[in-house]
Amino acid sequence: MTSNYIVADVGGTHIRVACFPVQSQKPTIVQRISTVGPDSPHDRLINLIATVAPKDEEIAAITVAAPGPLNPFEGIVYEAPNIPSWINLPLKKQIEDQFHVPVAIGNDANLAALGEWRFGAGAGHHNLVYITVSTGIGGGVIIKNQLLLGVRGLAAELGHVTVIPDGPLCGCGQRGHLEAVASGPAIALWVEQELSQGIPSSLSASQPITAKDVSEAASQGDELARAALARSATFIGTAIADFLHIFNPTLVIIGGGVSQSGEAFFGPLRIAMNEHVMSKKYLENLTLTASALGDDVGLMGALALAQTVTNPAT
Amino acid sequence: MTSNYIVADVGGTHIRVACFPVQSQKPTIVQRISTVGPDSPHDRLINLIATVAPKDEEIAAITVAAPGPLNPFEGIVYEAPNIPSWINLPLKKQIEDQFHVPVAIGNDANLAALGEWRFGAGAGHHNLVYITVSTGIGGGVIIKNQLLLGVRGLAAELGHVTVIPDGPLCGCGQRGHLEAVASGPAIALWVEQELSQGIPSSLSASQPITAKDVSEAASQGDELARAALARSATFIGTAIADFLHIFNPTLVIIGGGVSQSGEAFFGPLRIAMNEHVMSKKYLENLTLTASALGDDVGLMGALALAQTVTNPAT
Repeated sequence: MTSNYIVADVGGTHIRVACFPVQSQKPTIVQRISTVGPDSPHDRLINLIATVAPKDEEIAAITVAAPGPLNPFEGIVYEAPNIPSWINLPLKKQIEDQFHVPVAIGNDANLAALGEWRFGAGAGHHNLVYITVSTGIGGGVIIKNQLLLGVRGLAAELGHVTVIPDGPLCGCGQRGHLEAVASGPAIALWVEQELSQGIPSSLSASQPITAKDVSEAASQGDELARAALARSATFIGTAIADFLHIFNPTLVIIGGGVSQSGEAFFGPLRIAMNEHVMSKKYLENLTLTASALGDDVGLMGALALAQTVTNPAT
Repeated sequence: MTSNYIVADVGGTHIRVACFPVQSQKPTIVQRISTVGPDSPHDRLINLIATVAPKDEEIAAITVAAPGPLNPFEGIVYEAPNIPSWINLPLKKQIEDQFHVPVAIGNDANLAALGEWRFGAGAGHHNLVYITVSTGIGGGVIIKNQLLLGVRGLAAELGHVTVIPDGPLCGCGQRGHLEAVASGPAIALWVEQELSQGIPSSLSASQPITAKDVSEAASQGDELARAALARSATFIGTAIADFLHIFNPTLVIIGGGVSQSGEAFFGPLRIAMNEHVMSKKYLENLTLTASALGDDVGLMGALALAQTVTNPAT
């Protein structure tokens, strides 16, 4: 009987679910569905899994990439940004009780790192750092082909390092974190503040502003938009120099919406990283690149997790 | 025939060498010698090893804890603070050529972490962060019972993370690193600056000042000395909160001379760490403690390395 992995990527808005045959040499999504809707995320997730699972075929494992701090060992989501009802949610057990198959969950940024390592930009590397820059800034780290999880799975929160003491308030409640000064909302907020100071920009007509607006204006040559991306990229590049000193990897992958901004983002990031690294030895054999898996990174990470669930030796 | 590990700890001033019988249940130093002298560190090291090795007994392995960035896989010291002649030194090969036994080298702070994990404050823990605060600030990290090394052994440089953008110059040439604001010399410099502003203190009679002077004055209740230790401890505690987010360990060990300052140092450090951590989940089951191995930490780390050289499964 054909056996399948059912994998899910739960975001604050979208929930995406896909089915992969276990036997396929190349991972192939046989069906992929997503929803945006008023129902509870939990119900939507369960319904999508039931819908995507092929009838009369086996489910080898179900895995879920979920937002927010979670404990992958116990399968509990501690809290999820944008899903207020998910507090200490025993998600693994709930799905197991429903489908009676092995279930595993992982932090979305961690699994994105795992997905890039197995199927994307990180293939062939043994030590890599993944940073996703979008609404928040998340991270995932592969050390000697293993995901860095820490004792409760709370490690690799690379957006939550202090870059400006007593700086702007972060979503986590602390101040001056990388996420608070360099995420998509931080970019948009800085542009709005500059506009209110009378700085000219093509963006002045389009308030409220999103990071996507800024990225598009930058690609049209807007100076303020380019400065906003450069500011975020400089913070991130400086933090990456720290991460090189901490992890000494061969690869740094930048994912998330903001990483789609091309050289307007990667140029200043590379400059800051090179300037702040304490020895050129960290840069020898180092590759800096954008995520290769795009919007599928969460699903592919969940797939990589599913393969380890059914075959821990991989 | 009795077999021994010869282990060495090379500092900028002292070189310490010890001999441990391989078979002893409890690690026992049968002989320990150290030198301070005018000869080249390389010659002193070789002579000490030859002196400490018992005649007519076997040497199972020789291991060396060395300062500065080095590549433990290739056995090359890239550079060593306070030993200007050690540039790209093939130390492992030089010792092998001399003694014809297996040799391994490691960064001193990394090996200190390994030593604490195997024989000291970290025994029984699987994930720990070690920070040594003295002339410099070094680090070592154990993840799932393995030392974090990175691709060239340059990882875990926890003193070289930016804590004040464009802050004071660091020994590494970058600015605003933790080491530049919180090491022993940074503590002494801050006190001297305050004294030059006319701040009263028992230390005003004893310039030039060392961190040890500050520590002693603090234990006598000197307000300026206490403020200087608190300032360093606050920087370190804030950085530790970042390291908790990055590594999610069960143990943080503080070593080095400054960590001998007791609650005048650990009190403010704990407060800063607790204030800056983004979730109390990182503090549950977390222990913060001082190094247990004291001045022997480098030798004990080299011993732990020697055991893995002869028995990689341990």
